[in-house]
Amino acid sequence: MGSSRTVRKLEVVSPVPADIDIANSIEPFHISEIAQELSIRPTHYDLYGKYKAKVLLSVLDELQGSGDGYYVVVGGITPTPLGEGKSTTTVGLCQALGAFLDKKVVTCLRQPSQGPTFGIKGGAAGGGYSQVIPMDEFNLHLTGDIHAITAANNLLAAAIDARIFHEATQSDKALFNRLCPPNKEGKRSFSDIMFRRLKKLGIDKTNPGALSPEEVRKFARLDIDPDSITWRRVMDVNDRFLRKITVGQGPEEKGMLRETGFDISVASEIMAVLALTTSLSDMRERLGKMVIGNSKAGEPITADDLGVGGALTVLMKDAIHPTLMQTLEGTPVLVHAGPFANIAHGNSSVVADMIAMKLVGPGGFVVTEAGFGADIGTEKFMNIKCRYSRLTPQCAVIVATVRALKMHGGGPEVAAGKPLDHAYLTENVSLVEAGCVNLARHISNTKAYGVNVVVAINMFSSDTDAELNAVKKAALAAGAFDAVICTHHAHGGKGAVNLGIAVQKACENMTQPLRFLYPLDISIKEKIEAIARSYGASGVEYSQQAEKQIEMYGWQGFSNLPICMAKTQYSFSDNTSAKGAPSGFILPVRDVRASIGAGFIYPLVGTMSTMPGLPTRPCFFDIDLDTSTGKVIGLS
Amino acid sequence: MGSSRTVRKLEVVSPVPADIDIANSIEPFHISEIAQELSIRPTHYDLYGKYKAKVLLSVLDELQGSGDGYYVVVGGITPTPLGEGKSTTTVGLCQALGAFLDKKVVTCLRQPSQGPTFGIKGGAAGGGYSQVIPMDEFNLHLTGDIHAITAANNLLAAAIDARIFHEATQSDKALFNRLCPPNKEGKRSFSDIMFRRLKKLGIDKTNPGALSPEEVRKFARLDIDPDSITWRRVMDVNDRFLRKITVGQGPEEKGMLRETGFDISVASEIMAVLALTTSLSDMRERLGKMVIGNSKAGEPITADDLGVGGALTVLMKDAIHPTLMQTLEGTPVLVHAGPFANIAHGNSSVVADMIAMKLVGPGGFVVTEAGFGADIGTEKFMNIKCRYSRLTPQCAVIVATVRALKMHGGGPEVAAGKPLDHAYLTENVSLVEAGCVNLARHISNTKAYGVNVVVAINMFSSDTDAELNAVKKAALAAGAFDAVICTHHAHGGKGAVNLGIAVQKACENMTQPLRFLYPLDISIKEKIEAIARSYGASGVEYSQQAEKQIEMYGWQGFSNLPICMAKTQYSFSDNTSAKGAPSGFILPVRDVRASIGAGFIYPLVGTMSTMPGLPTRPCFFDIDLDTSTGKVIGLS
Repeated sequence: MGSSRTVRKLEVVSPVPADIDIANSIEPFHISEIAQELSIRPTHYDLYGKYKAKVLLSVLDELQGSGDGYYVVVGGITPTPLGEGKSTTTVGLCQALGAFLDKKVVTCLRQPSQGPTFGIKGGAAGGGYSQVIPMDEFNLHLTGDIHAITAANNLLAAAIDARIFHEATQSDKALFNRLCPPNKEGKRSFSDIMFRRLKKLGIDKTNPGALSPEEVRKFARLDIDPDSITWRRVMDVNDRFLRKITVGQGPEEKGMLRETGFDISVASEIMAVLALTTSLSDMRERLGKMVIGNSKAGEPITADDLGVGGALTVLMKDAIHPTLMQTLEGTPVLVHAGPFANIAHGNSSVVADMIAMKLVGPGGFVVTEAGFGADIGTEKFMNIKCRYSRLTPQCAVIVATVRALKMHGGGPEVAAGKPLDHAYLTENVSLVEAGCVNLARHISNTKAYGVNVVVAINMFSSDTDAELNAVKKAALAAGAFDAVICTHHAHGGKGAVNLGIAVQKACENMTQPLRFLYPLDISIKEKIEAIARSYGASGVEYSQQAEKQIEMYGWQGFSNLPICMAKTQYSFSDNTSAKGAPSGFILPVRDVRASIGAGFIYPLVGTMSTMPGLPTRPCFFDIDLDTSTGKVIGLS
Repeated sequence: MGSSRTVRKLEVVSPVPADIDIANSIEPFHISEIAQELSIRPTHYDLYGKYKAKVLLSVLDELQGSGDGYYVVVGGITPTPLGEGKSTTTVGLCQALGAFLDKKVVTCLRQPSQGPTFGIKGGAAGGGYSQVIPMDEFNLHLTGDIHAITAANNLLAAAIDARIFHEATQSDKALFNRLCPPNKEGKRSFSDIMFRRLKKLGIDKTNPGALSPEEVRKFARLDIDPDSITWRRVMDVNDRFLRKITVGQGPEEKGMLRETGFDISVASEIMAVLALTTSLSDMRERLGKMVIGNSKAGEPITADDLGVGGALTVLMKDAIHPTLMQTLEGTPVLVHAGPFANIAHGNSSVVADMIAMKLVGPGGFVVTEAGFGADIGTEKFMNIKCRYSRLTPQCAVIVATVRALKMHGGGPEVAAGKPLDHAYLTENVSLVEAGCVNLARHISNTKAYGVNVVVAINMFSSDTDAELNAVKKAALAAGAFDAVICTHHAHGGKGAVNLGIAVQKACENMTQPLRFLYPLDISIKEKIEAIARSYGASGVEYSQQAEKQIEMYGWQGFSNLPICMAKTQYSFSDNTSAKGAPSGFILPVRDVRASIGAGFIYPLVGTMSTMPGLPTRPCFFDIDLDTSTGKVIGLS
């Protein structure tokens, strides 16, 4: 690819300009050129404007016989609240592999939530000279996948409350007659989706008229326990006033009030389904078996019981195709899915990675990012994502910064919006050395999966040679395959060439199969405890509620699912102030929930916010459209 | 166009198959072929998959010097709850003009709300052999415009509650310091959008430090009266439990509860803005001046006061471009905007019509549909839409059916889901004749705008020649330019050829300017009364609340806006059972509201539901995806 048409030579400026200014200074290639470089035929992609295309799953049928490329996951050490540049490193590494090392490469990234773009956080397309462009399209609607999730999630929510309402106001017979109305000839029939519920109930009759009154009752009355409903509504907006609400206060709802709330859209289980599904038919099944709560008798009630699994699939049928974009240097990017990294598994989609592996082929590279620190992101990548995808990574990159390691070594608190303490701006090798216990544990944990670990030391201008060398030395001592200093933020792919070379060697030297941290057929508690041990915990303490839930999921037949820990990313433990590599602590599990359609159980360690708020002065004060050029201004 | 590549010959089958089966039986042209027929250069459109493209407003710059085509609006008589085939006639007429009469033609349609597709109503792409395809894409996400509206509407809603919250918990000074924070050099500045508020307050200082404490208070404290907030959240889902809700019940919101609710997305004022705007810069201004409620002192508070008008424009920047699709016979369709026809003006977008008028050019035809009966749809088309667009129609089509005229003549009630009374299935000429008073009033009302009126008699298989001729006779007697029997549902464009010829003659014989029903510079009450008289009312009765609102809008300086009546479409009067042409009644106005950004005042005559619900057995029970072909099944 080094000599190909779609590689763009960057002219870098110092000091590095604002992200949006760099992004706006470059005219992207038409996305069909990027697709052509990857040999994707026009029948296998749909354009969405000039700079985005959906790569259709049909491309997998054509490439079925092709071999896979190397598979690289990018994780990080336990970060500061400022972030250590994991996305930027992912993009920079790919720019190096594609634009400088002549490799076929695809970057697989998560689609960011639109809400925070207008709140505090700003965008998520990488930074400096390592970015995905057009940056505004990446951060805003993209190709509508999150909007589709919002629509599907909320159709299911509306179906739940409407069903409870209609069941409350009608007899078994009236309900049944409305569910199976007579056609013009007076004949009643079941719709296809109803056979799923009939099968679940063990009723094998095909004629509605043949059901006994007891069967009519079982079929028509879901008898949902309102207190058991875990399905919430979602919105891709930071709207704190929707965190807890009461619905049903209109006079026509006859006093059937219920307390519930909204999460931000990316927290929807449907996002996790999208990220973990492997095909259209697999998605249909996952969406249909999502559990929204229980019947009063304790049976799980699914989307298919409500008759809505098919409609959800129809709403999601375009969202299943990943979106092709490009980096600043013209290398291809697949953007797809962006599940939460605590209550969900925080990784981009399985189908994007599957497609990318075939597109790059043997000798090529797929680089995918895992959310949060490696204790969470990489762990879930291995034990959840790879378990469902059956893909095997050869190399795991761990992104480290001198700043974060100083914090782990005992440096003062680092907080967003506050000036950095001078400890972080002047040389302090011993602080760095002390902090490397954090890096070391991430390395050994990651190595245990049977991959080679390459540490990417994301260099800041205030870092000194002595500090950087201390990190390198500690990384190698902890068993890293290599440790490389990178300057892709300031220099683009050129600044990550050595990282690219190290990653290539790491991949070429790995032939082991993937070793999971736990098998699926042990108990939920044993699986939780295996993960807790990887954090350094000496044990796990379960609340009464957690015990109750674990017992219920066992009874409902869900105990053989993988585990998705909802834990802070700011420490190996549940205590965000426990930096470095804490050990010997007891990990508290305060509740246990499940995403049955997505396919995991998620224990809650601490309280997770699933709906951000707007500050007094949100980002939107700076965002506007230059109506003469049509360009977005003020996006960060 | 008759001999052009993109005309498709239909092979019609009798009896007419289901809409989805007809739609699925035809492979649409690639949308770039449709664009090419219209001579739209590739730089002026963006593909969204293979069968949809957004036509960019930039095409208007290129076509600035070109002449306009003929402009035809399709309205209807007062309908039955089953609908009289207005969309179908609009599509059929265009298929006739384009595929049989060799004319350049563009159909301009509203984008349907996605919610009802899964509820009771089903889709809205026309029917039989007069449809827009692909029908599933038309009815579902399309190109994401409604999703953009949802996102923008709800960002504004979140900004309102967050601002009230932050104002309640901070001093003037703290608030101001957060709104204008110091940069790295310690210097404070106003963002661009803040100058809009400063200007409104009459403060011409540019340095935050120069504001007096009183000016700081006025600038930083919007002091929104929670009880005055008219801005609601929206969702494109039929979710009746969100009609009335209480928000802010989370512990972090500190007890700042508020009662509010959700409307369906198409009821958002932003939809009306999209439909009435004429350019990007005009949309920026309209979005910024939307009023969300009042300050405690009674001053209107706008999106720009909240600092969010620019961000709303950024969210809507792609939505402003209309979506190009095609009919079954390959003629072009622009789908764009779909505001409610009661609380808003119920017409597709001004920009789509502007673009279409240039694309067809002199001698070509733009056919656009107005929602509801002509008393509402055509009236608002003329007095609101054409007033803002400055486009002049030459011809208005009024769609009539024997069925609806029988109802107006005294036939029994027609209700959805109930079998039709035999009066509607057997010949009854006198019932038809008696009902033609309804048609006659719609004709004379529409003629008053200075257009030629063509009546399209949408024929059903049960209609007899004597009945159809009675309608024709009555139409001509009432002053119609022509009245034509059409069979486009059964035969496609071929069934509307005579209608096409009549419309062509009507256009060629019209040179009058548009005459509005009322000027803008009379009082709100005088404008309401002018419209009420067109309904046949002898007067208007205002509730106390309506009086209060009219006075307030006058005081706030909004009395020179056009009026958008929120009235039932099932009668000329407010009483849905008053069929035919009632007169001498007093029209009750129970409340008066305003969409200041969109640019109209809307009096409420009766109660309008702005959030539909789901029945016991919603349409979604039949909808699924055939995962082997990727085709949608069960959509109606």
